[in-house]
Amino acid sequence: MPPVPPSAPAETSPSGRFVTPRAWAEAQLGAAAELLLEQAHLEKKAAAAAMQFLFRLPVQVPIGLHRELSALAREELVHFERTLRLLGQRGLAYGPQPPSDYAGKLKAALATTMPERLVDELLASAVIEDRSHERLLLLAEVFAATDAPLADFYADLAAAESRHGPTYVEVAAAVLPADVVVARHARLRAHEAAVLHALPFAHRLHSGWPES
Amino acid sequence: MPPVPPSAPAETSPSGRFVTPRAWAEAQLGAAAELLLEQAHLEKKAAAAAMQFLFRLPVQVPIGLHRELSALAREELVHFERTLRLLGQRGLAYGPQPPSDYAGKLKAALATTMPERLVDELLASAVIEDRSHERLLLLAEVFAATDAPLADFYADLAAAESRHGPTYVEVAAAVLPADVVVARHARLRAHEAAVLHALPFAHRLHSGWPES
Repeated sequence: MPPVPPSAPAETSPSGRFVTPRAWAEAQLGAAAELLLEQAHLEKKAAAAAMQFLFRLPVQVPIGLHRELSALAREELVHFERTLRLLGQRGLAYGPQPPSDYAGKLKAALATTMPERLVDELLASAVIEDRSHERLLLLAEVFAATDAPLADFYADLAAAESRHGPTYVEVAAAVLPADVVVARHARLRAHEAAVLHALPFAHRLHSGWPES
Repeated sequence: MPPVPPSAPAETSPSGRFVTPRAWAEAQLGAAAELLLEQAHLEKKAAAAAMQFLFRLPVQVPIGLHRELSALAREELVHFERTLRLLGQRGLAYGPQPPSDYAGKLKAALATTMPERLVDELLASAVIEDRSHERLLLLAEVFAATDAPLADFYADLAAAESRHGPTYVEVAAAVLPADVVVARHARLRAHEAAVLHALPFAHRLHSGWPES
């Protein structure tokens, strides 16, 4: 059973974006094993998602963006391998894990026809990467006092994820006009905030924050 | 239309393996553009295949082999990016390409039930990597006189591919006993030789060699 989280409400940034409170990360202290197992799966899925886009980009997408997406997939694989190494060093098993509800609920809001569907999928990846970046940074902060190697691991991952969101937006803007992409991105970010508000707290990177 | 290849028959090595004659590579001179476009697709597909295995390996496969497969996928992505760069430098477009018959015909001989199916798929990847290694080396040789950058490119790719076949066999041997893997590997190699004998010559890496 996940512990009952502190009752601090979720915050909103000046730009209206949903900001994860630091207390979310504090409630993850002590759950390194669960978080690391999930991280391995998240990195593997992120790499697979980037690679699947390489098979779906329309011909007008410049060759340089194919290379950027490929490099992004490689970086996720480096993280996957590093997470596996950390699991091994800590005597933790790498095994199957049920998916969380986050990605599924996020993707329920995507367009169903092309080319909007592809753009929305790219933007969903951008939203996930940005949220991962935010939360990995928070985890780096809260684990710094008690588990320096884990904090360093999270800080390194966060630095990489901060570049991935913009890459996905750039690729999306090669599929549809930039103003359309900006509007759809804002819509998806708002939807993601609603998804997180509705999800229960758990020892998972994209868990919710119950306010009641 | 592909040119009519020289009439040298396909050779067989002392171990009974099908050896691609050097004349196959000589018949590829002048087809750098077609070969490079296909190479980009081959590298992308090889990376995707390695990554798909990461989602299908049973729990008993040691964590170190997951890392090896992940590193293999990364190496294929590096090759993909390098091939895209070369296409760009030569003013060649990167666009869709119809798949060749090679992989489909090779996979027609695979087991249909688990765990033999997974082992056969891993061994099919090993067979493809070994054939790619052999032919990339031949291409490096024949292009050396007329196109040194292309010859270097092929030599670098060949060096990497030479490590990939053994990795796939090692992963297969973590799924079924080694003697079973060795026998199935030999059976698949023989099937692959038959597939290549039956395929027509083309400006593709895994094209056939008509003896008549």
